[in-house]
Amino acid sequence: MASSLPAYSGYKHFQTTSPAPWIAHVQINRPQKLNSFHEEMWLELRSLFNALSTDSSIRSVVLSGAGDRAFSAGLDVVAASTTETLQGGKGADVARRAAGIRRHILEFQECISAIEKCEKPVICVLHGISYGLAVDIACACDVRIVARGARLAVKEVDIGLAADIGSLSRLPKCVGSMSWVKEVCLSAREFGAEEAERVGFVSRVVEDKEKGIEEAVKLAGLIATKSPVAVQGTKEILNHARDHPVEDSLRYTAIWNSANLQTDDIKAALFSTMKKTKPEFAKL
Amino acid sequence: MASSLPAYSGYKHFQTTSPAPWIAHVQINRPQKLNSFHEEMWLELRSLFNALSTDSSIRSVVLSGAGDRAFSAGLDVVAASTTETLQGGKGADVARRAAGIRRHILEFQECISAIEKCEKPVICVLHGISYGLAVDIACACDVRIVARGARLAVKEVDIGLAADIGSLSRLPKCVGSMSWVKEVCLSAREFGAEEAERVGFVSRVVEDKEKGIEEAVKLAGLIATKSPVAVQGTKEILNHARDHPVEDSLRYTAIWNSANLQTDDIKAALFSTMKKTKPEFAKL
Amino acid sequence: MASSLPAYSGYKHFQTTSPAPWIAHVQINRPQKLNSFHEEMWLELRSLFNALSTDSSIRSVVLSGAGDRAFSAGLDVVAASTTETLQGGKGADVARRAAGIRRHILEFQECISAIEKCEKPVICVLHGISYGLAVDIACACDVRIVARGARLAVKEVDIGLAADIGSLSRLPKCVGSMSWVKEVCLSAREFGAEEAERVGFVSRVVEDKEKGIEEAVKLAGLIATKSPVAVQGTKEILNHARDHPVEDSLRYTAIWNSANLQTDDIKAALFSTMKKTKPEFAKL
Amino acid sequence: MASSLPAYSGYKHFQTTSPAPWIAHVQINRPQKLNSFHEEMWLELRSLFNALSTDSSIRSVVLSGAGDRAFSAGLDVVAASTTETLQGGKGADVARRAAGIRRHILEFQECISAIEKCEKPVICVLHGISYGLAVDIACACDVRIVARGARLAVKEVDIGLAADIGSLSRLPKCVGSMSWVKEVCLSAREFGAEEAERVGFVSRVVEDKEKGIEEAVKLAGLIATKSPVAVQGTKEILNHARDHPVEDSLRYTAIWNSANLQTDDIKAALFSTMKKTKPEFAKL
Amino acid sequence: MASSLPAYSGYKHFQTTSPAPWIAHVQINRPQKLNSFHEEMWLELRSLFNALSTDSSIRSVVLSGAGDRAFSAGLDVVAASTTETLQGGKGADVARRAAGIRRHILEFQECISAIEKCEKPVICVLHGISYGLAVDIACACDVRIVARGARLAVKEVDIGLAADIGSLSRLPKCVGSMSWVKEVCLSAREFGAEEAERVGFVSRVVEDKEKGIEEAVKLAGLIATKSPVAVQGTKEILNHARDHPVEDSLRYTAIWNSANLQTDDIKAALFSTMKKTKPEFAKL
Amino acid sequence: MASSLPAYSGYKHFQTTSPAPWIAHVQINRPQKLNSFHEEMWLELRSLFNALSTDSSIRSVVLSGAGDRAFSAGLDVVAASTTETLQGGKGADVARRAAGIRRHILEFQECISAIEKCEKPVICVLHGISYGLAVDIACACDVRIVARGARLAVKEVDIGLAADIGSLSRLPKCVGSMSWVKEVCLSAREFGAEEAERVGFVSRVVEDKEKGIEEAVKLAGLIATKSPVAVQGTKEILNHARDHPVEDSLRYTAIWNSANLQTDDIKAALFSTMKKTKPEFAKL
Repeated sequence: MASSLPAYSGYKHFQTTSPAPWIAHVQINRPQKLNSFHEEMWLELRSLFNALSTDSSIRSVVLSGAGDRAFSAGLDVVAASTTETLQGGKGADVARRAAGIRRHILEFQECISAIEKCEKPVICVLHGISYGLAVDIACACDVRIVARGARLAVKEVDIGLAADIGSLSRLPKCVGSMSWVKEVCLSAREFGAEEAERVGFVSRVVEDKEKGIEEAVKLAGLIATKSPVAVQGTKEILNHARDHPVEDSLRYTAIWNSANLQTDDIKAALFSTMKKTKPEFAKL
Repeated sequence: MASSLPAYSGYKHFQTTSPAPWIAHVQINRPQKLNSFHEEMWLELRSLFNALSTDSSIRSVVLSGAGDRAFSAGLDVVAASTTETLQGGKGADVARRAAGIRRHILEFQECISAIEKCEKPVICVLHGISYGLAVDIACACDVRIVARGARLAVKEVDIGLAADIGSLSRLPKCVGSMSWVKEVCLSAREFGAEEAERVGFVSRVVEDKEKGIEEAVKLAGLIATKSPVAVQGTKEILNHARDHPVEDSLRYTAIWNSANLQTDDIKAALFSTMKKTKPEFAKL
Repeated sequence: MASSLPAYSGYKHFQTTSPAPWIAHVQINRPQKLNSFHEEMWLELRSLFNALSTDSSIRSVVLSGAGDRAFSAGLDVVAASTTETLQGGKGADVARRAAGIRRHILEFQECISAIEKCEKPVICVLHGISYGLAVDIACACDVRIVARGARLAVKEVDIGLAADIGSLSRLPKCVGSMSWVKEVCLSAREFGAEEAERVGFVSRVVEDKEKGIEEAVKLAGLIATKSPVAVQGTKEILNHARDHPVEDSLRYTAIWNSANLQTDDIKAALFSTMKKTKPEFAKL
Repeated sequence: MASSLPAYSGYKHFQTTSPAPWIAHVQINRPQKLNSFHEEMWLELRSLFNALSTDSSIRSVVLSGAGDRAFSAGLDVVAASTTETLQGGKGADVARRAAGIRRHILEFQECISAIEKCEKPVICVLHGISYGLAVDIACACDVRIVARGARLAVKEVDIGLAADIGSLSRLPKCVGSMSWVKEVCLSAREFGAEEAERVGFVSRVVEDKEKGIEEAVKLAGLIATKSPVAVQGTKEILNHARDHPVEDSLRYTAIWNSANLQTDDIKAALFSTMKKTKPEFAKL
Repeated sequence: MASSLPAYSGYKHFQTTSPAPWIAHVQINRPQKLNSFHEEMWLELRSLFNALSTDSSIRSVVLSGAGDRAFSAGLDVVAASTTETLQGGKGADVARRAAGIRRHILEFQECISAIEKCEKPVICVLHGISYGLAVDIACACDVRIVARGARLAVKEVDIGLAADIGSLSRLPKCVGSMSWVKEVCLSAREFGAEEAERVGFVSRVVEDKEKGIEEAVKLAGLIATKSPVAVQGTKEILNHARDHPVEDSLRYTAIWNSANLQTDDIKAALFSTMKKTKPEFAKL
Repeated sequence: MASSLPAYSGYKHFQTTSPAPWIAHVQINRPQKLNSFHEEMWLELRSLFNALSTDSSIRSVVLSGAGDRAFSAGLDVVAASTTETLQGGKGADVARRAAGIRRHILEFQECISAIEKCEKPVICVLHGISYGLAVDIACACDVRIVARGARLAVKEVDIGLAADIGSLSRLPKCVGSMSWVKEVCLSAREFGAEEAERVGFVSRVVEDKEKGIEEAVKLAGLIATKSPVAVQGTKEILNHARDHPVEDSLRYTAIWNSANLQTDDIKAALFSTMKKTKPEFAKL
């Protein structure tokens, strides 16, 4: 059974437990509203993942939605429309409203990017309704697992806007088929678990959310048995590689490893391999 | 039945009709030559798509070839070889011929890129022979649908040249498998509809050209019901994302939306969602 | 039967033969150690591929491992750990060891990149154990074929390090599914031939190594019948395209072809097409 | 005395003459309005420089303003404000006006960029009032000469906008002092000829406009005695270098010269050097 | 006389006053230690400039050091060496210490980058001792003014490290002479006010600190009379231009201005120009 | 007096001595031909600087020409024209000659880039004739000093070609005035020591070659007293910064220093500062 993680009990909209040593399981916890997001929530998300990033007792993170119906229905449009944020303030001219909107979007984006910047790998389990912001969030995770029956959509054009919190920026780099990316982003049509797997958006399809979390925890556990120096370096270098030419990436990797190959973990790992024991690695 | 679009009746090699409101259907119209291209045609293609780009009565475009046999057999090699263009002019030295060729290629590329730069989404239906330039063109479109029986090939090495009108530049970013990209580009071997779907080059396979156009028009129609502000922004941001790091793309998206979130379309879309009516959006 | 290639007989750990005109077949030749690599071997690999790059009697290259058990088991960890290279020298402070490690990695990377920079296409046949460095090498090849039963893994995190010889830099650009890339790189788990095909890492799966080499030689032979000007230009432009925005790639292609469209091969190819003969192309 | 260039007599707002063989002297010709620009003028500017770009009888271009008072006072604000262009059309919502403005700016930018893209070197002589658009234009030229008494300013913040036709994009790459660039762009303050020289914006200061044109024609003449293959390649590669890392620039240069080193001009130039004669080069 | 700005009175190490409407004057306020920095100070600097960034009552910022002796002597090495931060924690292996150091540097860099990201222009007045971190900070400002007698140095190699808080990243883009940049960074030698002006690091030299602040306030005041929409857009676009190719920068500018040209400030500015009155602009 | 450096006595065209501890002085040694270069020389230059790069007994390098008349007259055109290299081989078609030329240029560029990649700072003393390749070489050095009377020119257009060994790639990033760069590159006109200093190409002008070497050795000596960890890191990061956006450069710097801040040199430097002694640093 999952044990509690007191350090993360202060978040109002996210429940964080530890299903196994080294692993944090974060749940978006507003099931009565299909885990849809308002501003306070994404600010919480940022500080939660910033904390996980440097928490040396955590080696991998699983992210899911609470309840059975939705990973997340996306932006809570009602909450959003009652605030002025989307319109940048009353009475201001177009440029001033634009400045307000820009600042708002940049901060919102930064909150979701906190998952990508989290030094620990994040495995996300998509299930049920997974609309709009749910896809933005999933794109910022490292590995995606999806439960059969999930209903995914890059939903934003349906409410009159081009998705701005990361789906349009990251999706073309998460999957290989640009034709598919454009189709689902331009039409906002739903796609299911099997389609998500076929295009490579997710690593695998599982029976249901339960099974998804089980598999995610298993993968998180496997990762947690590896050297954290190796794992966290791998995440960092892969994120860098996505955005840079191969030459640049090789150069970056070389200087990254100029420090990290001096770790004690290599000796520990080699020793364990020879002795067929389980290596112990210091915290990171 | 498709109605005519008088504004586009002046093009000699392209027939443009409107199968449904807001939609233009462009046909490459030289079926007796398997829709192969000579210079006048790609110049026409450019001005046609430049016009569609800012035609506010159009919201999405379908592109196909006339006749049953070919989307396009590619460059009309006979026409090309009778002109001097490929060789950059007689009597000149190598450097001067190179200058002529370079100018020629750059203009040719720009003509095909007009499809990518067209602000409206372009859905292309591949069928029958689809060689060389056909693939260049398809790569510049947003969504690709293919009819069973289509015969595709990045054919250029067969005539002694590295494809220069965009296939080599865009194909690696249209599909996920670099091994496959290299194989078909280096060998010029044909591939069919199912293979095109498997590697993600196209979004789906349909029975035949007819069915392909039907599906393309349906998708174009679905897109046309959405806010044109949202749709055109989505195309622009996805094209930008393909060529930039995620950080850059997020920043670009934020300033793009600083103006576009001020659109009336958001209110119209939200209102329609609540009232379960069909929103009306002003022209763009 | 494959004939010998005397020019390449001097390499201790690589056997190079010619199974057909214009084709070189390179075998990693240390089967008793599962073709695992020590430093002398990657230095040899570099000079071998540098030589092939400008050998005008060769038009395509097939790369496989000798023996049935492994393409390569990767780095020979025992050999590596007996040297000081991984630790950058005894007695030095962290910064000086880092400098030694950095120089070592940069040179090691350069050796593997020699395959990518080789002007001739390289088709690799993966089979049996293909761990760690085997994947680095495969990623630097142009086309990948895999034999059923192969066991692949980005194995590095298992020995406490982030893969630094190219897998992390190139894999995200070889396949479309970032979720899959992260999963296999973060967990070091094995994947088989079918999975490699499904995610697009390889172009196809074959029954066994024999069959793989047969198919690779066939593809290499097909490529060798094409204009080497066209083929080598295609490889260069595709490699450039992977790392640059489309606009940059188009511009680069235009100047590349400003010289290369002046080749005699175009006339030869067109003439052969008309006459239905087999074109002969001069060496390159 | 300058001879007329009939091919360029059709432009209403630009007078083009030939002060010496191979040289075109373009004058902005609306002195009664201080050579300020309205839309028709920048469209003309584009087609004029596009024509010069491939006119093989021209090898270098001098650009100045007609009359003594101004190179150009910049945008003709009165003309601009009477049109709807700056506001993107009446009655439209913010997003639609934004689309209109964006299209307008992109086209306007493209007109000025035509100078940069002109294959022939362009030397500009700044004199008198040189405000706003005058600086945008000057930044797109290759060499800048300024007459004493000139009054330059990046004037746009004075009319409530961030300069959008190129000054902010190019000025940081034309001069070395970012502190100075920011100061003059943020404050719109005037700067004179000596200051322009001190920060490296111009190559030299001359007594007056007359003298400036004399020097510009002399430099244009010197350039015209060189191989046009060499000169036009130099311009292209320098423009490319400004925007790319050194490694990329070297690679681009190598393929550029792979064609251009095959020119007859090298032999002609070497022969002339030995014989101490004046080389003749074919047109380009 | 400067009035106080209560919103900024809570900072322990920075005194912020308002010498004139719309202007904030920030002083590094630890004169007894030559304004050298410890960690708490750079964290404060970040939150101070983040606050100024969106404070609509401020339009430009002046930054100087308190006291006559130093703008800043740089890092307080004594304070730094008593903490573990520079060494990343005791007992950890090299990789874990590296992780600690990396996190520390990234946060430190982000604090100084807050000045660059501050939406308002920042003018810095260098005087007296200006070592190490002083240059990092100055490079992140928009305009630099220096008082005669100032002693500047990129001092870091003198304490055994490559400057890591921004000087090496920004200096090559602040001044034009790479030879000079390398000389002062590799040798840590001092340079004075005149040399700083000659290479373009500063916009001008003034008699002393007093005079420098006077000039900075005057320039800040001039900027404050302009449209804040125009000024803040100009800063943003110039920062973007520094780091992107011209084509990218033009595209970014066009969409930036697609919103901002809809400001009321343009009408206000044009009207004032005609009426020769002083325009009033709404807050931003 | 300079002592000999036996390790470098094997080079035929370069004389390397040690004027002071830790310093190598390399002289281009073909004064009878004005130190002009043929192919064997640039191959030697590469292996010489590759050796210096990792020679831990050297901390800085001075580069000058032997004899009084020239730093270097550039390419030995006579030697070059007697070989086939410039023309890529007889009898080949344009494309094959282009391939030969490209390979030749890429290798030639790599030889000169060896100076830039040399881990130790290189200070170059320009004097007398410094044409063509002399400027390519100078641009690849870190610091440039020039003797009065030197005659510099980017001479390549005079022999019919666009400079291809680095001047066009690096000069725009060595000096701030693009107008000046274009002028001298397009016209091949000479410029002298004072002009070189004014535009920032060199750090200073000295009386004559003797004095130049004296100053260079002094600067090299000053650099050699600093921590080699700090100095070599500074060179690497500055070279990286030139070619990358500031954000990228900061990130690269942070991981660079994550290893290098663990050096013993920091403690040694701080201790020496306190004790006012001269620090000793281990070799690197």
